[in-house]
Amino acid sequence: MLIAETGHFAAQWAQLASRLGLRPEVMPGDWRHGADPDAIGGRLAADTGSAIKAVLVVHNETSTGVTSRVPEIRAELDRAGHPALLIVDTISSLGSMPYRHGDWGVDVTVGGSQKGLMLPPGLGFNAISGRARDAAATAGLPRAYWDWGPVLAANENGFYPYTPATNLLYGLREALVMLDEEGLAAVWDRHARHAEATRRAIRGWGLEVQCADPREYSASVTAVVLPPGHDADQVRQVILDKFDMSLGTGLGRLAGRVFRIGHLGHFNDLTLAGALCGVEMGLQLATVPIEPNGVAAALDYLRTS
Amino acid sequence: MLIAETGHFAAQWAQLASRLGLRPEVMPGDWRHGADPDAIGGRLAADTGSAIKAVLVVHNETSTGVTSRVPEIRAELDRAGHPALLIVDTISSLGSMPYRHGDWGVDVTVGGSQKGLMLPPGLGFNAISGRARDAAATAGLPRAYWDWGPVLAANENGFYPYTPATNLLYGLREALVMLDEEGLAAVWDRHARHAEATRRAIRGWGLEVQCADPREYSASVTAVVLPPGHDADQVRQVILDKFDMSLGTGLGRLAGRVFRIGHLGHFNDLTLAGALCGVEMGLQLATVPIEPNGVAAALDYLRTS
Amino acid sequence: MLIAETGHFAAQWAQLASRLGLRPEVMPGDWRHGADPDAIGGRLAADTGSAIKAVLVVHNETSTGVTSRVPEIRAELDRAGHPALLIVDTISSLGSMPYRHGDWGVDVTVGGSQKGLMLPPGLGFNAISGRARDAAATAGLPRAYWDWGPVLAANENGFYPYTPATNLLYGLREALVMLDEEGLAAVWDRHARHAEATRRAIRGWGLEVQCADPREYSASVTAVVLPPGHDADQVRQVILDKFDMSLGTGLGRLAGRVFRIGHLGHFNDLTLAGALCGVEMGLQLATVPIEPNGVAAALDYLRTS
Amino acid sequence: MLIAETGHFAAQWAQLASRLGLRPEVMPGDWRHGADPDAIGGRLAADTGSAIKAVLVVHNETSTGVTSRVPEIRAELDRAGHPALLIVDTISSLGSMPYRHGDWGVDVTVGGSQKGLMLPPGLGFNAISGRARDAAATAGLPRAYWDWGPVLAANENGFYPYTPATNLLYGLREALVMLDEEGLAAVWDRHARHAEATRRAIRGWGLEVQCADPREYSASVTAVVLPPGHDADQVRQVILDKFDMSLGTGLGRLAGRVFRIGHLGHFNDLTLAGALCGVEMGLQLATVPIEPNGVAAALDYLRTS
Repeated sequence: MLIAETGHFAAQWAQLASRLGLRPEVMPGDWRHGADPDAIGGRLAADTGSAIKAVLVVHNETSTGVTSRVPEIRAELDRAGHPALLIVDTISSLGSMPYRHGDWGVDVTVGGSQKGLMLPPGLGFNAISGRARDAAATAGLPRAYWDWGPVLAANENGFYPYTPATNLLYGLREALVMLDEEGLAAVWDRHARHAEATRRAIRGWGLEVQCADPREYSASVTAVVLPPGHDADQVRQVILDKFDMSLGTGLGRLAGRVFRIGHLGHFNDLTLAGALCGVEMGLQLATVPIEPNGVAAALDYLRTS
Repeated sequence: MLIAETGHFAAQWAQLASRLGLRPEVMPGDWRHGADPDAIGGRLAADTGSAIKAVLVVHNETSTGVTSRVPEIRAELDRAGHPALLIVDTISSLGSMPYRHGDWGVDVTVGGSQKGLMLPPGLGFNAISGRARDAAATAGLPRAYWDWGPVLAANENGFYPYTPATNLLYGLREALVMLDEEGLAAVWDRHARHAEATRRAIRGWGLEVQCADPREYSASVTAVVLPPGHDADQVRQVILDKFDMSLGTGLGRLAGRVFRIGHLGHFNDLTLAGALCGVEMGLQLATVPIEPNGVAAALDYLRTS
Repeated sequence: MLIAETGHFAAQWAQLASRLGLRPEVMPGDWRHGADPDAIGGRLAADTGSAIKAVLVVHNETSTGVTSRVPEIRAELDRAGHPALLIVDTISSLGSMPYRHGDWGVDVTVGGSQKGLMLPPGLGFNAISGRARDAAATAGLPRAYWDWGPVLAANENGFYPYTPATNLLYGLREALVMLDEEGLAAVWDRHARHAEATRRAIRGWGLEVQCADPREYSASVTAVVLPPGHDADQVRQVILDKFDMSLGTGLGRLAGRVFRIGHLGHFNDLTLAGALCGVEMGLQLATVPIEPNGVAAALDYLRTS
Repeated sequence: MLIAETGHFAAQWAQLASRLGLRPEVMPGDWRHGADPDAIGGRLAADTGSAIKAVLVVHNETSTGVTSRVPEIRAELDRAGHPALLIVDTISSLGSMPYRHGDWGVDVTVGGSQKGLMLPPGLGFNAISGRARDAAATAGLPRAYWDWGPVLAANENGFYPYTPATNLLYGLREALVMLDEEGLAAVWDRHARHAEATRRAIRGWGLEVQCADPREYSASVTAVVLPPGHDADQVRQVILDKFDMSLGTGLGRLAGRVFRIGHLGHFNDLTLAGALCGVEMGLQLATVPIEPNGVAAALDYLRTS
């Protein structure tokens, strides 16, 4: 299994895979870019014996606010004619930015309820291709609760083989109605617009966005790089204490160096504006050297876009 | 009954009193000041036959964001040695700014559930003095449901003579716990701070606050005066359509000339910041000539206070 | 104003009318029958000078479980050619049993949210005829908040002149959807069926139903007469303590002599069955001499009807 | 791994264990008795090479309403001096009947949120002994999400290594407060009392309880055996259609032969009474030959106990 380590959560996948004895091959990254299609393509071309059974990519790295260009990665698999399955984690992108399991030729999509679907945590979703089913049928790794077989069999009749989290299913029904009422394209546009406003705020402060490639900006979360010598967690603490707002911490190798602003789910312009005001004031209170022009830049954009 | 017409809601009291045949005497006002203690004192001194049975003052005029200085009015009644009852409407001040029924010598206080008590509309409250009870006992105006007598009698044993709005009473119990946990003085300070931030934003836009006397600034609502030739309701509509935020309309003679920003109840710095961002963008979108410095001024204050 | 005293709540209307100085004429009753159409007709025929301005009837006496036959009373007004308005209290019948303001020629209907509409207490409803509006326009009784005029004027544009209990209006919208989904005729049948099951239980215990005329059985509440020497409130207390079920107390002259079983609103067969089980056990625990056949009789009926 | 097949859920454990390649040894049972301590003791005594690594018992078989006598099984392990771990499924007993992980010497206890803890489904709980931790540390089965290691490590500081189902944790906090307010001993007594009332109802109908040994009666669920030639699922359908009550179906080899009455969690005498009324009427409507004395027998017991 080839895993592109685009950030903390990709690294977590590698760790889980290791625990299962899968001996994943990790392609290192700088945590500022998505998975590199060319590098993946090169690695697969070199794997003439098809030892790599799957390529795992995190669509939206929650730890960095960087997305990976899944269609380009799919194209590399196709170009190499490599049979590896394509596995994509969409936990923090599903319902917030364009994702197309079928059109993009993904074999296994992993999603969750607690981000763009606006539900409490508790549900996980898998979309799987026929090839993934075939692979599962012959795979040797022991499975019990997570085995797709009994779930797919029960689903034929609308059932689930274990006790389902029924309350969340009621919530899911309503969440899907809400997404449909707004229209999925409009939901995606809204998230992209809030992400752009957030980046303009960050630049207005004279700070840097963790994501280095504009093609890979996340629409659901943006990580802010602190200047050297400033502790992102101290900024977060000030903002929590003073403004009762909890920002995402830097994870893994980004601990203390970035904080993260989430802008996904049931969220609108003024919620974002209030959040950015809190960040601007918090940065100043924490004596991070910024220009106080972030909120103004975001408002200019929100007003005119 | 002497009513100081400090705004729309004082005018409504006069209208209700008229409908009841009470022939209220209305002291006109400019809707930018609270009730004038001197003028009230003068009027009472002239009423040597004690024809005036009550003085009614709205503590916080929801339509203008102007408060009346109740203790000074009480002092005028005392100075004149006039037996009129002092009636105070605290609907939009109760729980949001200092008010002391007993200490201030108020005879009848009227409050409601839907503002500082953070509940849905549906409950009204009366605090009444012994003199008010005595007056009610001999008053000639027919009363049925609103009669204090049966309510006071039933209350002796913890009951209410009619079907009470039980759900709101559960909510009230929790609201009082919340106010107590934060501390009433802290709640009042919080509201005063948000009102000051709002006024700084308004001045940052180069606009005018409807309340003309700093001693009478409301802590729960602030009315913003539009420049001549600009329709406040059109601004409100732009903000509602674009940002899903509903501001208070100008009432009575202020229709179209002001809009109102509420900042009371369960409310914090970032909620206010988001609201002010929406107002600043909305004013610009509605092409009201403003300087875009309102949000910045408010944030400066919120950050440093 | 002529008021048929069919029970405690009719007596309360008389008391409220008296407080308003309306000097109501009360037609006494035995609290086991509805308003007597013949007696009302006779009284109106004798009122040749039309001194009686209105006839007030409680459709469903919550205190006794007795309904009044409104159409027959309307017919008596018509037969006498008397101009009195017909006022009907439907607080505990609205949404639970057939009632037709227009078809029955009622002038003023008074309803509430907290019974058949399945909402918390807090909303009152009036349906009024053109004649009632005309009468209100010329009536001399002082009115303020309760005056129909401002409400009707504001309602023309979908508004309400005072702060409405918005949360209850959301609830009302849903309650009306629920009633519509079940179908109003089905809702009425359901209540009638549960009332019959309750009466069969009462007879199965060898006890008496307070309502003496089968034409006047209430579909929403049934009062149970205790044998002499037994205190209904003690039975209620036993049931509350032992089974956590609160039954209605006997009101006014029925205090201690009856308790009341409500069977209205969001209610089904097994809710009723559980309630009747609690009553049967409670009567036995309170050593009221009964035959333990009430539940069995109710179940026989519920099963086969 | 030795699994006592006391019913459908024990069989499910065996199936899950098989999927994991654990080759469980299943001790068959008649689904009317709990796990047989003597048989387990005998099997362990014969396992001189300690090939059996664990004994798995379902404390309360949800499919049959039969409990296993865990302390007696523990005593057999001790008597045999066998090192196998004792694993107990308490999913439908936790919080409803006496269970003592520590006192009973259990190594792994498995519980869930959706039964006696009165929460929606979504949380699982493990209590584990030091011996179980040691065994896990050296076990060869691949584990990832289910691995105790990262959970225990994160728990040291009050955290959880993955996204927890936060809403359920708030619910759990309240559920524990509720259990504590009533008192765990009182909660257990309440369940035992309702189970006894249910069994009296069943006998009053002339039907049979699935559990054959009074020492093993479940306090949380009771399975009712239908007479030959009668389909339990048809009875369930009649009750669902007519009374909107959903009873548990017969599972596995009991399909069509039993239905199950749950009496656990937030539940009181009249809820049970209503449920039993629905069953009695439903059995009659489904033309199962019963004596209509079940409700009466249950009420006699509930009233006098």
